[in-house]
Amino acid sequence: MRATIMFGAGDVRIENIPDPHIIEPTDAVVVVSRACICGSDLWPYKGQEEFPETGRRMGHEAIGIVEAVGSEVRTMKAGDLVVMPFAFSDGSCIFCKQGQHTSCIHGGFFGIYGNDGAQAEALRVPQADGTLFVLPIGKDDRLMPSLLTLSDVMGTGHHAAVTAKVRPGTKVAVVGDGAVGLCGVIAAKRLGAEQIIILGRHADRIALAKEFGATNVVSERGDEAIERVRQLTGGYGVHSVLECVGLEQSMLTAISIARPGGAVGRVGVPQNEMMPGSLPAFYNNISVSGGPAPVRAYIDELLPDILEGRIEPGKVFDRTVDLDGVPDGYRAMDQRQSIKVMVEP
Amino acid sequence: MRATIMFGAGDVRIENIPDPHIIEPTDAVVVVSRACICGSDLWPYKGQEEFPETGRRMGHEAIGIVEAVGSEVRTMKAGDLVVMPFAFSDGSCIFCKQGQHTSCIHGGFFGIYGNDGAQAEALRVPQADGTLFVLPIGKDDRLMPSLLTLSDVMGTGHHAAVTAKVRPGTKVAVVGDGAVGLCGVIAAKRLGAEQIIILGRHADRIALAKEFGATNVVSERGDEAIERVRQLTGGYGVHSVLECVGLEQSMLTAISIARPGGAVGRVGVPQNEMMPGSLPAFYNNISVSGGPAPVRAYIDELLPDILEGRIEPGKVFDRTVDLDGVPDGYRAMDQRQSIKVMVEP
Repeated sequence: MRATIMFGAGDVRIENIPDPHIIEPTDAVVVVSRACICGSDLWPYKGQEEFPETGRRMGHEAIGIVEAVGSEVRTMKAGDLVVMPFAFSDGSCIFCKQGQHTSCIHGGFFGIYGNDGAQAEALRVPQADGTLFVLPIGKDDRLMPSLLTLSDVMGTGHHAAVTAKVRPGTKVAVVGDGAVGLCGVIAAKRLGAEQIIILGRHADRIALAKEFGATNVVSERGDEAIERVRQLTGGYGVHSVLECVGLEQSMLTAISIARPGGAVGRVGVPQNEMMPGSLPAFYNNISVSGGPAPVRAYIDELLPDILEGRIEPGKVFDRTVDLDGVPDGYRAMDQRQSIKVMVEP
Repeated sequence: MRATIMFGAGDVRIENIPDPHIIEPTDAVVVVSRACICGSDLWPYKGQEEFPETGRRMGHEAIGIVEAVGSEVRTMKAGDLVVMPFAFSDGSCIFCKQGQHTSCIHGGFFGIYGNDGAQAEALRVPQADGTLFVLPIGKDDRLMPSLLTLSDVMGTGHHAAVTAKVRPGTKVAVVGDGAVGLCGVIAAKRLGAEQIIILGRHADRIALAKEFGATNVVSERGDEAIERVRQLTGGYGVHSVLECVGLEQSMLTAISIARPGGAVGRVGVPQNEMMPGSLPAFYNNISVSGGPAPVRAYIDELLPDILEGRIEPGKVFDRTVDLDGVPDGYRAMDQRQSIKVMVEP
């Protein structure tokens, strides 16, 4: 079968590799219906991570059809349509039970450490019972793009909002206008935020942010952005900040625009060992939480809103490619010509 | 009257200065019955802060007798015995109303920025109604030392436990065996912690930690301490960490011993702009909260436990001095010959 392999910075190729098969009795093999390219795929694409010599399988978000299951898999069968979170998890360990699936003791992440990737015709899914969620629809459903976001960006935006303690009536800022930030806007509105300020500067993304519920746009950066958010919030800053970038500057901005006692929920993968803003966070009693989103834990809560049309996170996809188009999809996202690329293998 | 002034690193003197008097109608003047020397007073003592040319008034914890009140003060009168939190606050602003008194819009801190200090015969207290808490006892009560800790260390230890999300049945670690860490042990036990691991290495303090409820002692440092805490917690780390030191190494240890989904509550004043451990905190979804404790907000909750003898935080005082003994008290705390020094002017 064909799959996406990244061999180095900017070097994405579609290669022929052996078909996936069941190895552990808890595995499933899934034929990919839809996958996508993630903002976090751009970190290795930019050369900021190391590569194994044989290249790295790419892709960690998918909807697909179960092709085969191991002997211990109980909750699905061949032919089921499933959504696949970006991390696999057994669903039964001490951390899964507390909703912390990305810390599962028997878990891991797709596309790294030798695990299969989803930008491919098919892949092996470990811990199938704990990981995959059987969808109650057909594979040609018009809701497919939105359901696909349950595998990462919608769940991740929701995690940012939850860890930033968004509650009804709160003032919220979203740092970053990528697909996760845009889903963060949806999540903040869904949780009842009164004011949602998006910090971003790309016209197409800002337009979508407004459609999703953003009430204000701040296109300035650094100190000017901080000043602008203060002006918009009576001088105090916001209750909740969703940090959806991961850079030092964006994190410092996030802490600086939170009001005393406020909360930053960060889901942008940090690029540094040291976190900036330790002193203002301390002196203002601002909590910093977040991390890899346990999106598996959130599907039950978010799915009905998608099925019933209350939220449409699938709108973040503004380009669709087949497998041959994946390298160009990376280029388009890297050059910000596309918000998020969907892959139909 | 006489008051403690610090002129530079290690240079603490008792000086004659003008008596305090009412300036604003919301002020009170308080004659100090008991004050103390704080671990945070040792930062300037070690030369890690800058000094105004005229020196700096020291002391921010006190119990005293109200001598005079401004025309707008309603909740106390001359002769009342009051406990004075280390920060003053109006009790009515947007942040005080949410229990964030250390961020009061009209508030401030004793002993800096020209505000009076409590290691003195008397001091002026701004925002008296919002700041001072009238105690229902006489000034010679045997509970005085414990009540004095409501002005800082007991409330601060409680804040660490609250922001570290200590709940009944949780496993807790306390980093630091100073007076705040020891009060953190009391707070963790009070909130129902099942296991309380104290990280410290001073025999006298460890003995007190055990008396307060610590179930385990880890005297190692760095990686060895992390390994030891993991051994004590089934390999996972603790749910809650109370960071009561503020150094880079102690903060990194705190993050490293929290289990996935855990929480660090930090009350040790950070000595660096950058926080270590940003990546492990992120990848394990560990929240980092805390800051200057809104101790005024906690008096209502903690006072009954002291009055009824359920907790005895006053045991952290192991030396009492008069004003002339204050310079020697600083030396004793700096050389770790004393846990915490009480001052009876």
